[in-house]
Amino acid sequence: MRIDIITVLPELLKSPFEASILKRAIEKGIVEVHMHNLRDYTDLSYNQIDDYQFGGGAGMVMMIEPIDKCIAALKEQRDYDEVIYMTPDGKTLNQKIANSMSLLENIIILCGHYKGVDQRVRDAYITKEISIGDYVLSGGELGAAVFCDTIIRLIPGVLNNETSALTDTFQDDLLAPPVYTRPAEYKGMKVPEILLSGNFPKIEKWREDKAYERTEKLRPDLIK
Amino acid sequence: MRIDIITVLPELLKSPFEASILKRAIEKGIVEVHMHNLRDYTDLSYNQIDDYQFGGGAGMVMMIEPIDKCIAALKEQRDYDEVIYMTPDGKTLNQKIANSMSLLENIIILCGHYKGVDQRVRDAYITKEISIGDYVLSGGELGAAVFCDTIIRLIPGVLNNETSALTDTFQDDLLAPPVYTRPAEYKGMKVPEILLSGNFPKIEKWREDKAYERTEKLRPDLIK
Repeated sequence: MRIDIITVLPELLKSPFEASILKRAIEKGIVEVHMHNLRDYTDLSYNQIDDYQFGGGAGMVMMIEPIDKCIAALKEQRDYDEVIYMTPDGKTLNQKIANSMSLLENIIILCGHYKGVDQRVRDAYITKEISIGDYVLSGGELGAAVFCDTIIRLIPGVLNNETSALTDTFQDDLLAPPVYTRPAEYKGMKVPEILLSGNFPKIEKWREDKAYERTEKLRPDLIK
Repeated sequence: MRIDIITVLPELLKSPFEASILKRAIEKGIVEVHMHNLRDYTDLSYNQIDDYQFGGGAGMVMMIEPIDKCIAALKEQRDYDEVIYMTPDGKTLNQKIANSMSLLENIIILCGHYKGVDQRVRDAYITKEISIGDYVLSGGELGAAVFCDTIIRLIPGVLNNETSALTDTFQDDLLAPPVYTRPAEYKGMKVPEILLSGNFPKIEKWREDKAYERTEKLRPDLIK
C-alpha cells in the first residue's frame, strides 16, 4: 500500500511513523508513506495556502489551488483508489471501514486545518470524507495518523502472531474480555482462579461470557 | 493544566506535542505535558513491563507492578483529578466530554499497548476509561495525543480569536456549514453568490440552513 499525505504540518506527523508498528511496516516494505507539504504547491508570497472566508467570520480556509496542484501532481504518477479528506463531519471511522480500507493500493489523505478546506475541494477532488470521532482536533494530522495506524496494522504481514488483530475488540462486534498476567497475586488482588486452572475449554467459555457481559454493560449498542 | 502520560513509547509522542497548537499552549505555560517511560519503573531484567496472559492466548499484557509504581510516584507529588486509561472499550470521546475534561487541573493518562493492561490496574487505579472511537490502534499513544489535542485547544488562551473553538462542528450539535475562500471562481467552479453579497444577516441565515441541511443529511443522529 502507498499512502500520500498532504499537510501543512509534516513535522507533526514525524514521530508516529517512526515508531512501533508503523515503522516496522515501512521497514518491511509493506507500506510506503509519503508526506507532501502543501506550501510547496503555492505560487503566492510567504507560501500562503489559506485565506479569509467569503462572507466573513473567524477562521482561515485552505485554498483550492495548492490542493488541486498537489493532487494533480500525484495523480500524474499513478492511479489512486481514494482521495480521503480527514474532517469531523466525515463518515465516522470504525473497524469495518478500517478492514475494507486496508485492502486498497494507493490512497491520498488530505489533512484539513484552520476552519477546513474550500468546499469546492471537497466537491471536486475528494472521494471519501472520514472522521475519527465526534470531536474537533486542531488539524487533520492526528486524524490521519490514527487512520493510517488502524488500517496499516490490518495488512497481512504487519503484525506477528503474538499481536494478531483477530482477537481484537470490535473484530466480532464484542469488547475484549479482561486480561491478566503475572503475578497471580499483587497486594491482595488475585487473578480469577479459572485462568490458572489449565482447563482451556472452560477458560474459552469464561472469556466469551465476560466479553458478552462487558459489551452488554458498556456498549449495548454493539450487540444487535 | 498538567498532563502526565505513562507510555512504553514516549518517542512516538514527540512530534505531536512539538508542533502547532499543542506546542504553543506549552510555550505559553497554559499546559504542562510530561512523558513517563514505563520501563523506568520495572526491576525486571531487560526492563520487562509485559508478560504472557494467564489462561493462554496471543498477545502480551502490561503488568500491574510498574504501572502501580509509576502512578504512586506521581501521586506522591500532587493530587490528580483523574487517572485515565486509553482503551477501545472505554467511554467514547465526544465534544461534551472534551469540554468537561478541559476544566481539570492534573490528569494522568495511561497508554495501553499489546493486548492491554492487567485488569487489576483498571479495577484499582483507573478512574476513567476513554476510547477515541470504535477501532483498534496499535497502542494508546495516538489516542492520548488525540485526547490531549481536543481538550488543550479548549482551554481559554490557547486558541486566538481567528481560530475560535466556538463555531466548531459539534459545539452546537450541528456540523459546520461549507466554507469558501478566494478565488471566487476556479476552473469554472464558483463560490455561492450569497457569500459575496455583503448582506450579513442573509449570510448568517444561509449558513444556519446549510448547517442543518448537512447535519440532517450526514449525521441525523446528532439532531434529537
